[in-house]
Amino acid sequence: MQKLYGVILSGGVGSRFWPLSRVTSPKQLLKIAGDESLLKTTIKRLSPLIPGKRVSIVTNSTQAEIIRLHLAAGKSGGKGRGPEFPEFIVEPSGRNTAPAIGLAALKLIKKDPDSIMAVLPSDHLIGGGTSFIKTLRAASLVAKEGSLVTLGVVPRYPETAYGYIKTGGLFKTMNSLKVRKVERFVEKPDIKRARKYLKQGGYYWNSGIFVWKAKAILDEIKLHLPSLYGALLDIERGRDMTEAYKKIKPISIDHGILEKTENIVVIEADFQWSDMGSLSSLKEIFAPDGSGNIIKGRVVDIGSKRSFIIGSDRVVATIGLKDMIIVDTPDATLVCPRKRAQDVKDIVGILKEKGFSEHEVHVTVERPWGAYTVLGKGDRYKIKKIRVLPGCRLSLQAHAKRSEHWIVVSGRARIQRGEEVVVVSQNESTYIPRGVKHRLENPSKTQPLEIIEVQNGEYVGEDDIVRFSDDYERG
Amino acid sequence: MQKLYGVILSGGVGSRFWPLSRVTSPKQLLKIAGDESLLKTTIKRLSPLIPGKRVSIVTNSTQAEIIRLHLAAGKSGGKGRGPEFPEFIVEPSGRNTAPAIGLAALKLIKKDPDSIMAVLPSDHLIGGGTSFIKTLRAASLVAKEGSLVTLGVVPRYPETAYGYIKTGGLFKTMNSLKVRKVERFVEKPDIKRARKYLKQGGYYWNSGIFVWKAKAILDEIKLHLPSLYGALLDIERGRDMTEAYKKIKPISIDHGILEKTENIVVIEADFQWSDMGSLSSLKEIFAPDGSGNIIKGRVVDIGSKRSFIIGSDRVVATIGLKDMIIVDTPDATLVCPRKRAQDVKDIVGILKEKGFSEHEVHVTVERPWGAYTVLGKGDRYKIKKIRVLPGCRLSLQAHAKRSEHWIVVSGRARIQRGEEVVVVSQNESTYIPRGVKHRLENPSKTQPLEIIEVQNGEYVGEDDIVRFSDDYERG
Repeated sequence: MQKLYGVILSGGVGSRFWPLSRVTSPKQLLKIAGDESLLKTTIKRLSPLIPGKRVSIVTNSTQAEIIRLHLAAGKSGGKGRGPEFPEFIVEPSGRNTAPAIGLAALKLIKKDPDSIMAVLPSDHLIGGGTSFIKTLRAASLVAKEGSLVTLGVVPRYPETAYGYIKTGGLFKTMNSLKVRKVERFVEKPDIKRARKYLKQGGYYWNSGIFVWKAKAILDEIKLHLPSLYGALLDIERGRDMTEAYKKIKPISIDHGILEKTENIVVIEADFQWSDMGSLSSLKEIFAPDGSGNIIKGRVVDIGSKRSFIIGSDRVVATIGLKDMIIVDTPDATLVCPRKRAQDVKDIVGILKEKGFSEHEVHVTVERPWGAYTVLGKGDRYKIKKIRVLPGCRLSLQAHAKRSEHWIVVSGRARIQRGEEVVVVSQNESTYIPRGVKHRLENPSKTQPLEIIEVQNGEYVGEDDIVRFSDDYERG
Repeated sequence: MQKLYGVILSGGVGSRFWPLSRVTSPKQLLKIAGDESLLKTTIKRLSPLIPGKRVSIVTNSTQAEIIRLHLAAGKSGGKGRGPEFPEFIVEPSGRNTAPAIGLAALKLIKKDPDSIMAVLPSDHLIGGGTSFIKTLRAASLVAKEGSLVTLGVVPRYPETAYGYIKTGGLFKTMNSLKVRKVERFVEKPDIKRARKYLKQGGYYWNSGIFVWKAKAILDEIKLHLPSLYGALLDIERGRDMTEAYKKIKPISIDHGILEKTENIVVIEADFQWSDMGSLSSLKEIFAPDGSGNIIKGRVVDIGSKRSFIIGSDRVVATIGLKDMIIVDTPDATLVCPRKRAQDVKDIVGILKEKGFSEHEVHVTVERPWGAYTVLGKGDRYKIKKIRVLPGCRLSLQAHAKRSEHWIVVSGRARIQRGEEVVVVSQNESTYIPRGVKHRLENPSKTQPLEIIEVQNGEYVGEDDIVRFSDDYERG
């Protein structure tokens, strides 16, 4: 049997999820739907059918490093690459889904000319246990015969934020799942039309999950997007990818291929699914209470209705809200009506314009060895809480422009400072002078280490670091 | 001429101003209408007519210490008491305005049997330059002749949050200001009635500012509130005040006296005035923009209307709000419709019930020597940024249950630690072991001192402190 490969598209930031998402914490890396990120969940979800080593992540160079370190996090000595990790296919810059999928198909076909690829976004929410795998397996059997297969989700309510697929006649039945012809793709409808589709039947939600032979999609690209095909061939022949990508026009696989080809069928996907397109999708994760509210965190509410109030450690107090979304994070709070959830991306645009940093990075930054939280900063200083996971250590490093005071508040630290190694216990401190090579390590197998770091210097930016050695192979 | 005394009522917390106000930062101490607190502004406003030494502040024992330290703040060596500071009249517990005013009258009459007292809330907003003093002077001349005089503010719009005074015929003219008889006091009207009052004329806003002879109001209390009068006499005879207060029923001067007496007149007060009764009153301080919004702080807004968005250092992002109030502080955010501003006090009630601390104390706590900000806390530790004003010093103190690491991030510290005195400069640190007497001082005449303090210990509460010596006479 032809092998099934996973291709996970993971190039976006998901700015509609701000302030939960940031440039350095894109939506697919958020743990909003469980203990693990959407991306890790996506990889795990495939595992009964597609092992990690047959999964590729298509992303851009900025995201690739973030994702690699995310996959490495917490795994002692894990580097986020190697046999048990997905492979990265790195685009020089994002060009929407058609080039990303084409590039992945190209790589796969070289590895395995008969390969079948399942293309999945990295940030979807999928429920329903085994149903997903059953559908994917059936889809791969149909794809094996040459069709492009798209997963059409059975609509459960009249959603206006999704595109729809109007189905034609039955194409075939595979493992007792209906596979239909596609009559046409339908843009996001208004509520009236969405209600009609639901009532009338014969419409699916367009999931953005596809299964096809790598060769089949490349043939379609050759036919419908010849200039993209040319660029892909150039890349295959060893041409500089950045140069090749400059010529590629951004286009989605939907507009570029699926709406044009005759060779497309849709398989009925009957499981919980959400594209997590905006903060409105929070209703897919959390069950609303009796008043229609979703309330998380240290929230004090009086009489709100149908509102999503997602707090954190801070107090959020609300009175008499109706159909509102509030998302609170340590450094930024969003307040908007639910029906304006799509416009959150515009807020991110304004933050960028204004030169703010609250769209780029969270106050707490995950690192493969743990995390740090910026507690405060001022002229010539910055204060961090640093948490090192058991058995983990930071890189051996030095800073040209700052010195660091370290006070251990929890656990025990093994600290290399210049030529000496010292052990610093709770309520003890040490000092790392400017320019001195140092390394912080948590030697415990079970207890986390927490230190407070006070940086002093003419410049206290994150980029003032030289790494001499790193467990996670960072530059 | 009889002397005019100021009696400032300052017993409230102003919980409708949460999260700006806290138990330890009551509304009257907030700098919401300028560079100085409402209380200090109230004292200054009186100064052309009533010097500080003839001003009394009536408050309760908790607030008295907070207010004293507030008045002392920044004044090198100031103790918040002494000839240049107002005198405190401390009630054992709040009993509304009638007992507070009666107690103040009692104290004044002993000092000066002919004294005239101007009674003013501590937290009102008053604009209009000399007009206030002109009105107060005229009112005192009318009061001198024996009447109880209330200031009636000329309404500028149909406000529903104020009580009104319906005036009778002209009583007299004083310094070209009209003094009218009071026909009756009117409860807060609905918008329809408020519009009628404005159109019809003959109505004033009931300002809660009164001028009368101390003897005159005591006579009225004797007549209309005999049991309060009895309690006041007991106090005068040296009876324990706490005991006496237990018997006193809370009642406002309006309900207890003014609505009953025939001896009341109203003087026309034609200046900007607001009782700052709720966050809705922010519109009195800040001019709304073209969309009717008041936006302060790091706010990013898309298309909101008639909304008050008061941010701080954090980002607050808003989309399409209508008639909303958002107030953001470092540890708490309030979101409510403008028309629900009165209900903010209920949020404070819930915070209290839940055992939260966000209604009690701000993250940044003002001290007479400067301020501290809690940057973080955890099990067995707390991190503070401490800012010491030039020339100021903290008390000579010790802690039984915690040690402290200090790192100077700005300025220079003179530190007494046990028997030694050391000078610690920027990027240097020191350690104060548990139990060791210490004192932090900013010896500079011009530069502030900033240190980061990391506390470690089994208990890191503020009350683990023994003071051996203090510039501000704290216990």
